[in-house]
Amino acid sequence: MDVGNGFLHPDRLFPADPATRSIARELYESVSALPIVSPHGHTEPAWFADDRPFEDAASLLVIPDHYLFRMLHSVGVKLDDLGVPRLDGKPVSSGRAIWRTFAAHYHLFRGTPSSLWVDHAMSAVLGCEEPLTPENADALYDHINAQLALPEFRPRALHKRFGIETIATTEGALDQLPHHRKMAEDGWIGRVRTTYRPDGVTDPDAVGFRENLVKLGELTGCDVASWDGLIDAHRKRRAYFRQFGATATDHGVPTAFTADLPHSDKQRLLDRAHRGTLEAGEAELFRGQMLTEMAGLSAEDGMVMQIHAGSRRNTDRELFQTRGPNMGADIPTPTDWVGGLSALLAKYGHAPGLRVLLFTLDETTYARELAPMAGHWPCLMIGPPWWFHDSPAGIRRYLDQVVETAGFANMAGFNDDTRALLSIPARHDVWRREVCGFLATLAAEHRISRKDAAIAAADLSYGNAKKAYKL
Amino acid sequence: MDVGNGFLHPDRLFPADPATRSIARELYESVSALPIVSPHGHTEPAWFADDRPFEDAASLLVIPDHYLFRMLHSVGVKLDDLGVPRLDGKPVSSGRAIWRTFAAHYHLFRGTPSSLWVDHAMSAVLGCEEPLTPENADALYDHINAQLALPEFRPRALHKRFGIETIATTEGALDQLPHHRKMAEDGWIGRVRTTYRPDGVTDPDAVGFRENLVKLGELTGCDVASWDGLIDAHRKRRAYFRQFGATATDHGVPTAFTADLPHSDKQRLLDRAHRGTLEAGEAELFRGQMLTEMAGLSAEDGMVMQIHAGSRRNTDRELFQTRGPNMGADIPTPTDWVGGLSALLAKYGHAPGLRVLLFTLDETTYARELAPMAGHWPCLMIGPPWWFHDSPAGIRRYLDQVVETAGFANMAGFNDDTRALLSIPARHDVWRREVCGFLATLAAEHRISRKDAAIAAADLSYGNAKKAYKL
Amino acid sequence: MDVGNGFLHPDRLFPADPATRSIARELYESVSALPIVSPHGHTEPAWFADDRPFEDAASLLVIPDHYLFRMLHSVGVKLDDLGVPRLDGKPVSSGRAIWRTFAAHYHLFRGTPSSLWVDHAMSAVLGCEEPLTPENADALYDHINAQLALPEFRPRALHKRFGIETIATTEGALDQLPHHRKMAEDGWIGRVRTTYRPDGVTDPDAVGFRENLVKLGELTGCDVASWDGLIDAHRKRRAYFRQFGATATDHGVPTAFTADLPHSDKQRLLDRAHRGTLEAGEAELFRGQMLTEMAGLSAEDGMVMQIHAGSRRNTDRELFQTRGPNMGADIPTPTDWVGGLSALLAKYGHAPGLRVLLFTLDETTYARELAPMAGHWPCLMIGPPWWFHDSPAGIRRYLDQVVETAGFANMAGFNDDTRALLSIPARHDVWRREVCGFLATLAAEHRISRKDAAIAAADLSYGNAKKAYKL
Repeated sequence: MDVGNGFLHPDRLFPADPATRSIARELYESVSALPIVSPHGHTEPAWFADDRPFEDAASLLVIPDHYLFRMLHSVGVKLDDLGVPRLDGKPVSSGRAIWRTFAAHYHLFRGTPSSLWVDHAMSAVLGCEEPLTPENADALYDHINAQLALPEFRPRALHKRFGIETIATTEGALDQLPHHRKMAEDGWIGRVRTTYRPDGVTDPDAVGFRENLVKLGELTGCDVASWDGLIDAHRKRRAYFRQFGATATDHGVPTAFTADLPHSDKQRLLDRAHRGTLEAGEAELFRGQMLTEMAGLSAEDGMVMQIHAGSRRNTDRELFQTRGPNMGADIPTPTDWVGGLSALLAKYGHAPGLRVLLFTLDETTYARELAPMAGHWPCLMIGPPWWFHDSPAGIRRYLDQVVETAGFANMAGFNDDTRALLSIPARHDVWRREVCGFLATLAAEHRISRKDAAIAAADLSYGNAKKAYKL
Repeated sequence: MDVGNGFLHPDRLFPADPATRSIARELYESVSALPIVSPHGHTEPAWFADDRPFEDAASLLVIPDHYLFRMLHSVGVKLDDLGVPRLDGKPVSSGRAIWRTFAAHYHLFRGTPSSLWVDHAMSAVLGCEEPLTPENADALYDHINAQLALPEFRPRALHKRFGIETIATTEGALDQLPHHRKMAEDGWIGRVRTTYRPDGVTDPDAVGFRENLVKLGELTGCDVASWDGLIDAHRKRRAYFRQFGATATDHGVPTAFTADLPHSDKQRLLDRAHRGTLEAGEAELFRGQMLTEMAGLSAEDGMVMQIHAGSRRNTDRELFQTRGPNMGADIPTPTDWVGGLSALLAKYGHAPGLRVLLFTLDETTYARELAPMAGHWPCLMIGPPWWFHDSPAGIRRYLDQVVETAGFANMAGFNDDTRALLSIPARHDVWRREVCGFLATLAAEHRISRKDAAIAAADLSYGNAKKAYKL
Repeated sequence: MDVGNGFLHPDRLFPADPATRSIARELYESVSALPIVSPHGHTEPAWFADDRPFEDAASLLVIPDHYLFRMLHSVGVKLDDLGVPRLDGKPVSSGRAIWRTFAAHYHLFRGTPSSLWVDHAMSAVLGCEEPLTPENADALYDHINAQLALPEFRPRALHKRFGIETIATTEGALDQLPHHRKMAEDGWIGRVRTTYRPDGVTDPDAVGFRENLVKLGELTGCDVASWDGLIDAHRKRRAYFRQFGATATDHGVPTAFTADLPHSDKQRLLDRAHRGTLEAGEAELFRGQMLTEMAGLSAEDGMVMQIHAGSRRNTDRELFQTRGPNMGADIPTPTDWVGGLSALLAKYGHAPGLRVLLFTLDETTYARELAPMAGHWPCLMIGPPWWFHDSPAGIRRYLDQVVETAGFANMAGFNDDTRALLSIPARHDVWRREVCGFLATLAAEHRISRKDAAIAAADLSYGNAKKAYKL
């Protein structure tokens, strides 16, 4: 990764104390050029498969970025004016109009990570020479669009320019992976890989769940009416995903609850799931049992299991009904990791080769639950700060609360977890800078040696992610 | 606000790093003289209405300040010796005796915000030349009392000297606002204004709740035996409060729970409330339904709704029985904002013009719930750190956890929330200094520009509070 | 305490800012030589009673330290290879083999408190001249063993060399205290003292609980079939423990729940406890009632009551079955202090002379519950950061969240709480350095005077612990 600083200050995010800053700078110089390992995220595989130019600044930078439009929505900007699509198909703003609205409110991102990401993308990646303002909005819009038309701004060129060693996309269990198949033909698997995310067939509350189950049976030829058949269907799909570079699965769940039921109870649950007659609490039980099954399959096939728990999805009913999911109204909730994972760990906690990465939105669990758990169980590692907590202060709180009890070796490095391709260098850069700032403070306080700090900086920037995801 | 530093160090609370401190100082100079906007608090309206001199140092500074007497009580000082009134009317200490007891233990406030506030009030406001000690207790007591007898220490003179642009008091729904009526005659409404706090008629656990309901009916001529009549009674009282400058309501609730029941259920609840036959859990349901109703009225009349949730009141039964409420034994509890507000937000979350300010005593909700919620819902803003968290470290934790996800624009500026008039400049000063220290760190770390930091400093010190409360 | 720095940097843990560091250094110089008061811990009384030489480096430093072996276990090192005993008696590694395994993985403790403690013990106490590496493992093993054979490394010599004024061990209610009896003969009681920890007879979930109850009756001659007899048995055992210097009791409980049941309910619970027929929830009720009873006895006999709440013990079932308890799989859980203690406080909260020290593993309760509670109730004080939180960052979070609301006077100083004798100076040293760093920051920010900072540093390093434990 070496895209430069653009108009951003080269010392940004480093601690203000001069001696500490100087250590941070030195550490950063030793890691800033390391390749990007991006083992979890939500970029579009079609980008890398088709390598078509991006359309325009608004559709690339604004429309898909829920960090941006949620904040503007919160101060009263209409989502229509930001081009966020409606389910009823009524027209919304596009192109330059969106961009002007965005520019008119860009000052609202002062002090937020979005401004760091957008400023970095616009300057270091897209070559804008000053931050966005209402005055320069039109000029920058034209400049960016002109850039995007150039060959060096096509997805594969950016992949190379960003120094991405490997990037994982995320696909559902029913996805036939057409884009990854194309990439396989082009020799791009490895540079891009998929991730198995079966929520659509493991969560009874998912839209289309029953139909999805049926499709899963059709796709695999397994009898998904029987529990064993269902698990076997997963086994087959996981194998298929591994053909396209997948080393990991991902599970987005409202809670960390896991279950370990007798076989007959599992079958009864499945019967009701097929009939749509699950009772209150049984969807949770089904999800919890499926997490345990997925751990069993991971122990079997070696795929790394990611658990993203604790988001209360779609809390704005009206918004969900008019525009669908992922619109910025997903809010974190408290998460009970100790109680939640107890069934899974009792069953598979000592399975050789099992690796489970835990991602939380409840920061109170960093020091109280996740670090103590990861500091004991060989199968557990802690994922990096997630979503709202992937920010300078969020990373500081994470390092402050995790490192002492979990140790560096139980941390899974960094994930950018983004849909916004151009923010990838910025996000890894913020992480690396924060890691170097943290380690510089430890070194300045004589808690670790400079040499050890450099090792830890490289591990957290690059090595740990590769090891954690078995890359 | 420009009352000087007294014997306090002019750089107090600024970060120690010299470069950062220098930015903080510069930012502070740009905001220190801005007027005080105090949109929520508990000063006595009689002070400003009658403008009588304060009695003496003990009754002004010690007796009404639960921050002070609770701490002394915790180390074994008798509340009688601090002049805290008893319900049985038995005599307690007064005047100089209280003051000497206070002075003998004043060192216990080392490191607490109380020492910052008291030192500031005694030096910058009252002209004492050194901090309180057992040795100078008598001399300072005489000095302060002599000051209080001067015209420039009367409430209205202090209001002016403190640079208060507007201050809100808080009155119950049944209050006829005699002091505000007098202020209206004197042209003081606006400089002072009331706030509608209907807990006495919305909380079935409130002392005298059933009688209060009856009084509310008498006062408004509404039929409070019917749910619609009850709501109409509130509508009338709110209109009356608005005549005396109220732009906001305030709701002190044990939890953030809200409800949205069918009309028949609401009426049934009200029937039981009148008869005193609410069953377990129904008081919570009544309170939760009333919060939703209040949001509906706010959407209708534009009054800003404040929710102060999460204090477990009167946890010391013996103390409550001997001295009543607000005696320092109210302890915070965990608060579920996402689940709690879901009914209210589902019903009124998109009502145009609705504004709800959220105050929490559960700091774990800053980054996990409040900032994400305020960063999405147009109607929600986050109130400043409340009560125990209105302190230097409390403000730092708040800024650290709120800003990145909520953005400055979703923050309601500062409230002093105090009963202690003389602490008002100190409290705003601590907030402004902490805000400047926080912004100076962002600037020193090149996360925002100096210019943007200055804008944010002014907004958080002054502008945001005015906007949040529609002043 | 004055064991030197060994190869550790003399400024370790002090804030990096030069002016702040200089204050911290000055404060530290004023407290570093104060005696160690260690009122709670888990060293072996036999060490001080028998004063035999320690065996070897592995059995002294590695095998008993669950901080060390849990972390190595978490990255896949076999517990057998670390010499952790098995319940089935099969052989495990010993001596030099353990040490080599430890050395091969010692780099994993980078950034954890364990490296601070081990480095300090090895260098400042044992005279090693460089940190442990795989290369120097053998040489250091021989060096340490040679040291341990010298008279000045026997337990009583170390007790003196460490400057321990008094150290408390912890014994169960049924313990006849043979080692303390021996120490009484030698005039060592006071230098070492016991602590009454009755969990084995107050917790129905304890291993051997019913037999323990019977033994308690035999030992005391009390009729433990009756509730009053049971309490009387405790009364007698507490008196016995006090003969051997005990000033405190200790209670390890999964939650902070307390109960205050009518006498008949208590007797019914006890009847069922004896018969082993307690129903779901009744073990918790029994524990909660016993906590209240213990508070009553403390109010009567003046023993300081310690409550260590919130560890979910033995969460790794397989590990528990093969190696027993205290193997690193105890994980913290959320703790409700306000609700939990309400019964105890309602009954005994105002009992003169009662003192209850609260220890939490749930850091969210520092500012939300513990500091507000300790800042009100005369009987409550807050214990120091416990277990995973006894670390540099853990101490910083504690001070940051506790001091402002509780004040220094409601804090119980420091406990090392350790089984690892040689880590005692290191642990107190880390605490003192962190306290001085914290106070230096307050002073550098002009929030307290240098003089007050020095007083607080001495209180937190030494004076508060003595006062809190009535020593």
